Amino acid sequence: MAAFALVLVCVSLSAQNQQPAATPVAPAAPSHRPKSPEVHADRSVTLRFAAPNAKNVQLFFEGAKPAPMTKDDSGIWSITVAPLEPDYYSYSFIADGVFAVDPANHWLKPNLIATQSMLHVPGPSSLPWEINDVPHGDLHHHFYQAKVTNDFRDYYVYTPPGYDPRGNTNYPVLYLLHGFSDDAMAWPMVGKANIILDNLVYQGKARPMIVVMPLGYGNLEVVRRGFGAFDDTRLRDDNFSKFTEELLTEIIPQVETSYAVEKDQKSRAIAGLSMGGSETLLTGLNHLDKFAWIASFSAGGLPENYEQYFPGLSSPANNKLKLLWIACGTEDFLIGNNRKFRDWLKTKNVNHVDIETPGAHTWLVWRRNLATVAPLLFR
Amino acid sequence: MAAFALVLVCVSLSAQNQQPAATPVAPAAPSHRPKSPEVHADRSVTLRFAAPNAKNVQLFFEGAKPAPMTKDDSGIWSITVAPLEPDYYSYSFIADGVFAVDPANHWLKPNLIATQSMLHVPGPSSLPWEINDVPHGDLHHHFYQAKVTNDFRDYYVYTPPGYDPRGNTNYPVLYLLHGFSDDAMAWPMVGKANIILDNLVYQGKARPMIVVMPLGYGNLEVVRRGFGAFDDTRLRDDNFSKFTEELLTEIIPQVETSYAVEKDQKSRAIAGLSMGGSETLLTGLNHLDKFAWIASFSAGGLPENYEQYFPGLSSPANNKLKLLWIACGTEDFLIGNNRKFRDWLKTKNVNHVDIETPGAHTWLVWRRNLATVAPLLFR
Repeated sequence: MAAFALVLVCVSLSAQNQQPAATPVAPAAPSHRPKSPEVHADRSVTLRFAAPNAKNVQLFFEGAKPAPMTKDDSGIWSITVAPLEPDYYSYSFIADGVFAVDPANHWLKPNLIATQSMLHVPGPSSLPWEINDVPHGDLHHHFYQAKVTNDFRDYYVYTPPGYDPRGNTNYPVLYLLHGFSDDAMAWPMVGKANIILDNLVYQGKARPMIVVMPLGYGNLEVVRRGFGAFDDTRLRDDNFSKFTEELLTEIIPQVETSYAVEKDQKSRAIAGLSMGGSETLLTGLNHLDKFAWIASFSAGGLPENYEQYFPGLSSPANNKLKLLWIACGTEDFLIGNNRKFRDWLKTKNVNHVDIETPGAHTWLVWRRNLATVAPLLFR
Repeated sequence: MAAFALVLVCVSLSAQNQQPAATPVAPAAPSHRPKSPEVHADRSVTLRFAAPNAKNVQLFFEGAKPAPMTKDDSGIWSITVAPLEPDYYSYSFIADGVFAVDPANHWLKPNLIATQSMLHVPGPSSLPWEINDVPHGDLHHHFYQAKVTNDFRDYYVYTPPGYDPRGNTNYPVLYLLHGFSDDAMAWPMVGKANIILDNLVYQGKARPMIVVMPLGYGNLEVVRRGFGAFDDTRLRDDNFSKFTEELLTEIIPQVETSYAVEKDQKSRAIAGLSMGGSETLLTGLNHLDKFAWIASFSAGGLPENYEQYFPGLSSPANNKLKLLWIACGTEDFLIGNNRKFRDWLKTKNVNHVDIETPGAHTWLVWRRNLATVAPLLFR
């Protein structure tokens, strides 16, 4: 119906009025749509979805269980979410069982399995992910044919404000990994990594650093298979080991050739969330000659036969490690796995920092993790 | 329903099996979904959409009228589109009047008014938008607080393979503008500008150049208002004039400070599609001291009182213009407007190239426009 309306609008503009019109790419003009999301002054949020014939519409909101929406006389379903902490949130609608992003909201959270819509509950400028009028770094998107994984892939590089490729300053590098089902753009687009670093650097809280955000799959078959892929231990292990190889033998050499960076172990950090947290631990702790700073956020998918996956890891590692930081939300379904791994590290006398924060397995935790750990790096 | 299923999966993984699981961000695993899109060997394409309770589902496919889909016993609606020319296509579903992207397809065409899904019908590697194993340039994403428009905005810069910020080679620059309702990422993500340039440069058909893709609104109110905004001539004119000012006084100076570029008129080109085509003509033809190469694709929204908007434009312009290239598809609803403008240029004795190609107001035309015009630039 919406699409028909647009076609008619275009015909009308061009044939009848002889008015030049703008690009008719959109099936519905905003005037035909409910306002959604609507963020209120008290930080409550109203979401609306036009679905006159639907029998049941629910809201699937980051960190919450699906909640029923109610329909008004015009066929608009709505729900108001209680006041939220300032942050970015993802959400979707479920209309008669069909998953849908919010058609009235152009801002999306990209994901290889399920895209969702995003919204921003603004907060004070002191929050690390708020866009402030401070100098902004740049994001560089690189494309290459990878030899290890034999596919065309990409990575993003954040350079801090003042970075000058022609200058004499070399920067330390944080390799920052996304989670399962996300891709290389997740940390900049959803995690706001560049904004967080802009603010921390401006405030003098973090050292200016380069942040490299690669595609986190050693074997893309894991994401094609979906959530069950990690039950296939051979596929899981191939994904982990090829990721490490891809990072060490292709991405790091490319970065260290192209950017003005320090190239010693003390100037390399690795961090990541969920699947990327496990990749951080597996890659970092097995290559302490390469990384002195290691931080996992809500690590997921880590094999629990640790002796096999971290062979020989023991107290001499403390001489190379500047930081081993292991964080997980207390409401995260992975908190037990993370505690178990930390307990094992204790038996091995490997120094580490235990971080448990409120929160579940969501970006609300991971943005805070990045904002907390970045100031600790390269000190 | 899908969301509930996922929540259950997570609980089951963590509480019962004690298996570490991957990030539970997605409301539905791929196994619960139809395969969509499915591109067949004969280049026909099947689209599928799970909507068991819907009464009417249509496909809205780039370049075509909405077409009815049919439902099978399992509640999956499907349609097979007749064999297509190799290219990228956007599409959406309309389920009981509700616009929806394809939930089984993570690849989206971002847009400020209506996001759509995308698919690729592969073709021979000779097609300019096919990803080939050739050297790839980089995309740089810049953020800044704009003074002219008083907002936080961004632009993308493509640097060709071999570009070295520390080197002695300076490159010519193409400023490439998107259309109404798109944003700065449209040309790289939908138009494949970087891939097209990679291929043309590798084949020796185009000169290595830098391509700058800014946000094309001088006043974002036009996109907030939707398609009717261009009827408000004051808003339309403010959008056009502030865009020109933003480009000339902020973006170009930033680019010419940050990149190794030639800074003379003969080394600057401007091109754009639809609204961006009009911006190309208004900015370029009124600033021939800045641009020698001007190319509009399916220009839209151009005021028709040309004498007022192009004051003094006449044959002396031919001394400064290296190329004025005005293209439009013959099925485009804007073909009449474009012919009218070219007729006026003839009365002014301003040399230009008339390009009419098959096609409507779609990216299928604009990718070909870019691939055709880029080899002509900076010769």
